[in-house]
Amino acid sequence: MQRIAFLLRLKPGMGPEYDKSHSAVWPEMLDLLKRAGISEYSIFRRNELLFLTMHIEDDFDTVWDRIDQDPVNLKWQQAMSAYFAPLTEGREGERFPMMREVFYLP
Amino acid sequence: MQRIAFLLRLKPGMGPEYDKSHSAVWPEMLDLLKRAGISEYSIFRRNELLFLTMHIEDDFDTVWDRIDQDPVNLKWQQAMSAYFAPLTEGREGERFPMMREVFYLP
Repeated sequence: MQRIAFLLRLKPGMGPEYDKSHSAVWPEMLDLLKRAGISEYSIFRRNELLFLTMHIEDDFDTVWDRIDQDPVNLKWQQAMSAYFAPLTEGREGERFPMMREVFYLP
Repeated sequence: MQRIAFLLRLKPGMGPEYDKSHSAVWPEMLDLLKRAGISEYSIFRRNELLFLTMHIEDDFDTVWDRIDQDPVNLKWQQAMSAYFAPLTEGREGERFPMMREVFYLP
């Protein structure tokens, strides 16, 4: 098990709508995340900044490959795409702006 | 138990020194955090942005009051103070820029 985290940004003013969508994530999307090996998945928000953290059972690329092209995910991402600001801080080869865990206390 | 998160920012270029300090947090500081009711405490960093997330046994103010004026914490905070950028995004009555959990999947 690994703890991972990355960040995303919303377009200005999109916080309330984003929250509303995430208070009612489709059951089939939740199933897909679980089946892909994700648990303890929290999304935290402050203004337009989102912080996503989760436990994953395999390495990140393996887990995300299970989700990426699934029709349920494609439909979910399409529904969410109106909320997100373009990613400007990605580094070469990154799917998302990943954060590195520099401290952990069990 | 509650999952909470807040963010902090480092001064430009301070990341590597911050990481180094956090790879060797004083045992007495770790003890203090545990005794205050903190567990599953991770700090994630990307460039100058820090994301701190933890489980707490009581409400945040109660837990932080146990830590705040402890001599070990005062000494630790003094040692860390060179790394942090001034907090500019605090809201009235906040100790830290708190983030709100808008989604959770167990």
